[in-house]
Amino acid sequence: MNEDERIATLARMFESVTARGVEVAIGDDAAVLSPGATGLTRAGRLVWTIDEQVEGTHFRRAYASWNDVGWRSYMAAASDVAAMGAEPWCALSSLVLPDDIDDQAFEAIASGQRDAAAEVVAPIVGGNLARGPVVSVTTTLLGGCDRPIERGGARAGHKLWLAGRVGLAAAGLRALEMGLESDARLVLGLEAWRRPRALIGASVAMAGSAHAAVDVSDGLARDAGHVALASGALLVLDGDLLVEDEDLCKAAEALGLSALDLALHGGEDYALLAASEVPIEGFRCIGEVREGSGLILRTREGERALEARGFDHFERP
Amino acid sequence: MNEDERIATLARMFESVTARGVEVAIGDDAAVLSPGATGLTRAGRLVWTIDEQVEGTHFRRAYASWNDVGWRSYMAAASDVAAMGAEPWCALSSLVLPDDIDDQAFEAIASGQRDAAAEVVAPIVGGNLARGPVVSVTTTLLGGCDRPIERGGARAGHKLWLAGRVGLAAAGLRALEMGLESDARLVLGLEAWRRPRALIGASVAMAGSAHAAVDVSDGLARDAGHVALASGALLVLDGDLLVEDEDLCKAAEALGLSALDLALHGGEDYALLAASEVPIEGFRCIGEVREGSGLILRTREGERALEARGFDHFERP
Repeated sequence: MNEDERIATLARMFESVTARGVEVAIGDDAAVLSPGATGLTRAGRLVWTIDEQVEGTHFRRAYASWNDVGWRSYMAAASDVAAMGAEPWCALSSLVLPDDIDDQAFEAIASGQRDAAAEVVAPIVGGNLARGPVVSVTTTLLGGCDRPIERGGARAGHKLWLAGRVGLAAAGLRALEMGLESDARLVLGLEAWRRPRALIGASVAMAGSAHAAVDVSDGLARDAGHVALASGALLVLDGDLLVEDEDLCKAAEALGLSALDLALHGGEDYALLAASEVPIEGFRCIGEVREGSGLILRTREGERALEARGFDHFERP
Repeated sequence: MNEDERIATLARMFESVTARGVEVAIGDDAAVLSPGATGLTRAGRLVWTIDEQVEGTHFRRAYASWNDVGWRSYMAAASDVAAMGAEPWCALSSLVLPDDIDDQAFEAIASGQRDAAAEVVAPIVGGNLARGPVVSVTTTLLGGCDRPIERGGARAGHKLWLAGRVGLAAAGLRALEMGLESDARLVLGLEAWRRPRALIGASVAMAGSAHAAVDVSDGLARDAGHVALASGALLVLDGDLLVEDEDLCKAAEALGLSALDLALHGGEDYALLAASEVPIEGFRCIGEVREGSGLILRTREGERALEARGFDHFERP
């Protein structure tokens, strides 16, 4: 397919997911949106994010199907919208494709994006296509909310609440890197890494009471560190509670790694971490906020300072 | 700089351009916008586009400074917003950077983006950073308008109007490819290719009367073909008027190429083509719309069918 044919294919595939307030979708210079028609933005607020997944950095061809690549990229962006307590509305996608991506692979990437958009109920209404040396999938998403939940609102006395699992996705990636994907103890990790889900339901649940929130994409410790820094507060993470996940412990055992290390420093979990005075439906308590700065890890053995370490694209070893 | 330090640098650099209605900019999971506060969307409409410029496809390091790379990428997206008759509001940027991009190159790319954002008066309010094998700069832009101008509104009897110049940017790129950049006749072409300008003023001017519009990014013939197809009409382009540009003719002479070919099939002009019954300030008439389909080129020698040929990312020779 040439460029126009590929654009026509995307228009056909993506139109199966619809949203209110979209007046012009794929096929013009830009999409046209009418935010007032959505019911999403009662208080008139939009949240807006962009995420890019690059072959060789975020995935390898041997590790995931092309459908997974499209799905993962969309969900990574949707998770950022969820982290603000907002409801996804619609998306644009920019695909970079090398010459060795045939039409079948192209359609598989697009179908993964469409499946994720259908799951999140936020269609892809436009985008861009270009040639490049490796596959890259960029997703920009708009969402609406009454009250955005920023990172800087955690205060002493709040509890820390977590929705979703941490550590399993990193175990899945490690299984792929180590060639251990046939080990039954790692199946859930592979699934977590290949098919992450933005926690839209949990996002809606926390919108009423959370004072601060972040999605866990670069590792719990690193993302909790962002909340601590933005809030000017100390976050205490309860290590014993983090490793109560039996599937995570089994996966860690299969890999010969520490379950706690995977939970704290793994990444690509797309869990949600929130600070709130009261319990949030679908979240479990994993710690608390205190006066101070930085992170503390609390276990039955005591408390110790925790480094806000996780995935950094430009860190030099 | 590590990732957090680079994000802090971007936040500092980009905050010098401000816009109304931006409640949360760089540093959280997503930007937070309040469209009602802008005055941009009197009729409540947003236009939204994304564009990606990839090293090796859209530019080479030897052809442009890093500042130019940032500038060009931003302007390509802004031109799509202008093509809808909309006013740019704010942008997100996603940067992919290889390991050999040092902090100085990184800051030069960002300063080019910031300079373009200042020119267009639409700040960068968030984004994403990732590592990858080549430099890629993605810009997604939101704009506001009362009445979006789509591609499909050209009707028999309208005249075709052009703002900006066509062919010069392609001449500049060709000069770089042929090692002719020291030829004085190609200086304006180099400038056109390296520092394109989204035609925001012309966009505002056409908003009142244009029935269809497109920005000329893939070559005039190809983009006019998109208008013809979307409108179900025949577009007649006046070749003699297109080559009345003396600078273009000199550049074509220096390259040993046809000025008309450069004007019709060059690309990266970021001119605006509009269909309107009445003259538009800042535009010149370059043809007309008739009943039918496809394109016709009219010169003093007569009329002939014109192929809607231009730049296609996935065309096989």
